[in-house]
Amino acid sequence: MVETIQWTGSGVVMIDQTRLPREIAYVTCGTYEEVAEAIVTMVIRGAPAIGVAAAMGVAIGALQADPARLDQEMETIRARRAGTRPTAVNLFWAIDRMKSLYASLRGRPVEEIRAALVEEALRVKAEDIQINRAMGAHGAPLVPDGKTVLTHCNAGALATAGYGTALGVIRAAIESGKKIDVFADETRPFLQGARLTAWELQQDGIPVTLITDNMAGWFMHQGRIGCVVVGADRIAANGDVANKVGTYSVAVLAKENGVPFYVAAPVSTLDLTLDSGARIPIEERASKEVTEVFGVPVAPEGIAVRNPAFDVTPNRYVTAIITEHGVATAPYEESLRRLASAKLGEN
Amino acid sequence: MVETIQWTGSGVVMIDQTRLPREIAYVTCGTYEEVAEAIVTMVIRGAPAIGVAAAMGVAIGALQADPARLDQEMETIRARRAGTRPTAVNLFWAIDRMKSLYASLRGRPVEEIRAALVEEALRVKAEDIQINRAMGAHGAPLVPDGKTVLTHCNAGALATAGYGTALGVIRAAIESGKKIDVFADETRPFLQGARLTAWELQQDGIPVTLITDNMAGWFMHQGRIGCVVVGADRIAANGDVANKVGTYSVAVLAKENGVPFYVAAPVSTLDLTLDSGARIPIEERASKEVTEVFGVPVAPEGIAVRNPAFDVTPNRYVTAIITEHGVATAPYEESLRRLASAKLGEN
Repeated sequence: MVETIQWTGSGVVMIDQTRLPREIAYVTCGTYEEVAEAIVTMVIRGAPAIGVAAAMGVAIGALQADPARLDQEMETIRARRAGTRPTAVNLFWAIDRMKSLYASLRGRPVEEIRAALVEEALRVKAEDIQINRAMGAHGAPLVPDGKTVLTHCNAGALATAGYGTALGVIRAAIESGKKIDVFADETRPFLQGARLTAWELQQDGIPVTLITDNMAGWFMHQGRIGCVVVGADRIAANGDVANKVGTYSVAVLAKENGVPFYVAAPVSTLDLTLDSGARIPIEERASKEVTEVFGVPVAPEGIAVRNPAFDVTPNRYVTAIITEHGVATAPYEESLRRLASAKLGEN
Repeated sequence: MVETIQWTGSGVVMIDQTRLPREIAYVTCGTYEEVAEAIVTMVIRGAPAIGVAAAMGVAIGALQADPARLDQEMETIRARRAGTRPTAVNLFWAIDRMKSLYASLRGRPVEEIRAALVEEALRVKAEDIQINRAMGAHGAPLVPDGKTVLTHCNAGALATAGYGTALGVIRAAIESGKKIDVFADETRPFLQGARLTAWELQQDGIPVTLITDNMAGWFMHQGRIGCVVVGADRIAANGDVANKVGTYSVAVLAKENGVPFYVAAPVSTLDLTLDSGARIPIEERASKEVTEVFGVPVAPEGIAVRNPAFDVTPNRYVTAIITEHGVATAPYEESLRRLASAKLGEN
């Protein structure tokens, strides 16, 4: 299994997801600013992985800050990190978790604070893998045997500390003995499906077929797809799901063709402060992601571009949301609130 | 206006649509085999343009054939051309038209036959532009003023002898004074939207915004899109529409969001011998179109790929079909049959 992010003792090493699968290269971040840059440039991406990176970034910041200015530094780090990618709520969740711990340690010796923050960041990572395994166990029974699972973007080991959310459900279904294969949408413009999901599943020997995003509906219409499983970047209290742009289209096409549409995400992806998905901020990224592919221009110069990185799927298209605490179904206001306050292994 | 295909007197010159918009290059075909190759490799594409190219290919073949073997040569050319791209019915329509003329001239002096075939090929081209203008006149009133028109693939001047089918409707709407702009799906894998539609509209000064295919649904959901207009490669008697892969998804998303979905195509695209779209052959193209972009790999080596070039949109998603003889609405069995037998300017 590929290692998405590792702690070195004084920094983090990440597999460079902008260069996969052409090159297997690693980026080492020795400052919190370098971690922030890696998140912005998508060296690391995927809501849970961003959460782990953010937690480690805070730990690096604490290790390097002047002890006399630790309070101000922690505030600066928090402000910087919050300005990286606005949609994935795990980023804010991880920073808040580190901040709470820091607040509880105020007045303690600086070395104790530092050690505790590093330990907490490592715990965020370790828990993420456990969480994904639990999600897999809850989700595997939902996957129809003998059919194809469609997924969009990459919600795999590369989007998390390991195992994956959506791909974790697929891995767990296979581990439980189901005979399934995967159709991976290539996921323009950043090509997470072609570059990351196809590669990650190929590495694991899981049968995967690459298609362009605009083919997914046609294969659903032909009865080929048993279910759709995707990840999420933020889920509102009513079950509206922000995820990689194109997810909304896949969900509508799934409903139209009677294909179950599942979202796999940890409870840290829930944002119960938002009553609906209409309030989720949608990041708009640079037009070059659309007009160039690995630096090669694919559109005329000077063309206008829209590049929202995410969209919001209304809850009516979501068959179920798979979390580490169990499976939520409509009405989501109740089911998500119940799962959010549950403990791992409780449901 | 760009010239898609031109007759030289002894062959054809085509703008190379595999290289646009990075390079404006031309390919000259001096034999019918070179024309067939240009169709297979998509130097020229778009159902009506393929029809014009096929007619000119037959004319070239007749010019070059040994007069004593003209019958056999015409049969060989017909067989070769029919094996190029199976979905676009205009290819077969154009060859049948040339073949009928040839049959009616049997026994006449070879020079007379050759001159008549060349003249007929030029007539196919000239008529195509007239047809597109007529389609534009019928379609323009359907386009909502002050809104955005979404189109998929390229059904423009580059897909025809000039003016375009879907883009012809857009051009006519603008000529009639409507204030509209265009959202162009990039149309993976061949990127006809990014490379051809965006370029063609930019050349004409028509406001166009490029998006990836998986964003179209999201913009419809946000109320940005006033209508969808696309072309077609083959339309069955019941109004099922084969067009560039991804069209089915756009149509479902349009219906879900209450956005009218229009198809603009000449009656030569109708195949009334097929009772439904289920009988339309769907071309599957090489996996490299998906795994490489301008020769740059975007997926892991050895990955399985599906690459259907077209899909079929069931008639229930089609608001209207705009032809040069008028606008057909459901029930299409009646309306299409009536328009197919009408004459230009009659409806």
